[in-house]
Amino acid sequence: MEPIITAFAQSPDRGRGLARDMPVRWALEEAGIAYRVRLLSFAALKQAEHLALHPFGQIPTFEHGDVRLFESVAIVLHVAEGSPALLPADPAARAAARAWAIAAVATVEPAIFERSMALLFERDRPWHAERLALIEQRIDRQLGLLADRLGTADWLDGAFGAGDLMMVAVLRRLGGSGLIDPHANLAAYVARAEQRPAFQRAFAAQAAVFAASQPITPPG
Amino acid sequence: MEPIITAFAQSPDRGRGLARDMPVRWALEEAGIAYRVRLLSFAALKQAEHLALHPFGQIPTFEHGDVRLFESVAIVLHVAEGSPALLPADPAARAAARAWAIAAVATVEPAIFERSMALLFERDRPWHAERLALIEQRIDRQLGLLADRLGTADWLDGAFGAGDLMMVAVLRRLGGSGLIDPHANLAAYVARAEQRPAFQRAFAAQAAVFAASQPITPPG
Repeated sequence: MEPIITAFAQSPDRGRGLARDMPVRWALEEAGIAYRVRLLSFAALKQAEHLALHPFGQIPTFEHGDVRLFESVAIVLHVAEGSPALLPADPAARAAARAWAIAAVATVEPAIFERSMALLFERDRPWHAERLALIEQRIDRQLGLLADRLGTADWLDGAFGAGDLMMVAVLRRLGGSGLIDPHANLAAYVARAEQRPAFQRAFAAQAAVFAASQPITPPG
Repeated sequence: MEPIITAFAQSPDRGRGLARDMPVRWALEEAGIAYRVRLLSFAALKQAEHLALHPFGQIPTFEHGDVRLFESVAIVLHVAEGSPALLPADPAARAAARAWAIAAVATVEPAIFERSMALLFERDRPWHAERLALIEQRIDRQLGLLADRLGTADWLDGAFGAGDLMMVAVLRRLGGSGLIDPHANLAAYVARAEQRPAFQRAFAAQAAVFAASQPITPPG
């Protein structure tokens, strides 16, 4: 029986692979695990049936046998447990890889998420430009530290793994912002990850959901 | 050899147990593991020696044998792996407990952290009051969903575990804000956790660091 994940029926990111089902799809592809997707409307997210699975009414969730999970990093790390493609064999290295995956969402993402929130909900406030500049300073400081650590390496800690997968998923939220460009090694890191066949399969799968959700427009 | 963690030599929270060494100390106390603490000045956080251990120049870190970790949740989950006091035996229940611990920092904390940042750095901005209200609406929505899930239970998912420990550590950042009070079951949940002997030992240990860092003031 294949695991079942949930995703938006109509993703607000318009198929750019920024919704949180993307890292889960990517991890499953890296691990070579076939999966099924249950698409949810925004209304369905807040209904009791989904809240039983995800207490905060978000996507993604993961159901496989008696395992029922929410929270993308938790799902990615669960998938990674059984996959040498996502976690190394050495116990100390495994623990370090988990730390990187958690750092992506707990340390790097908050300022990036704040930027998205400000762009979505505060554009018409008189403070928007000034506040955006403050947020972008915070983001740049963290990108600088991350770039220093990465240095000339291909991946954060040896071979590609769950930590890189989550970090790239978070950094991709800055696509088009120009904020990564001053950190050339980080830009190359994201591009390197996006070229992985597993990334491309996951990206195509989520983009297909968005394309299918669009009304057909006659050509011309 | 005992594990070594890092903490602030002079915590900006003035000993209220809000710095990120607190959940790590608490987890070690719940697990019955003695530990040592290396105290760091703010200047030391940004030096190469510490950045090698924590790429973002923060506390806490954890060193034990060849395991070297950063990120409080990653450390708590690592400690929890070996402790029935922090993770149940059943694999599916273990995975769910990890999801709660990650949700605490990845889903619940960001808005709470934003509130702290706004109070620290934006008090003198003309937008402060209006923006604080927006942040507090976000926090209240999440607290409402969390309160609904907790219901009349003592803990989030069966026995006390790593998920509760991280969730309470995050909720304690709202202490004194009045934001938890409308959710009486959450207030009781935090109070219940704070009464655990392991919490109290961890709290006393970090408070002692703050007390020792203060110049002695003559009485009267």
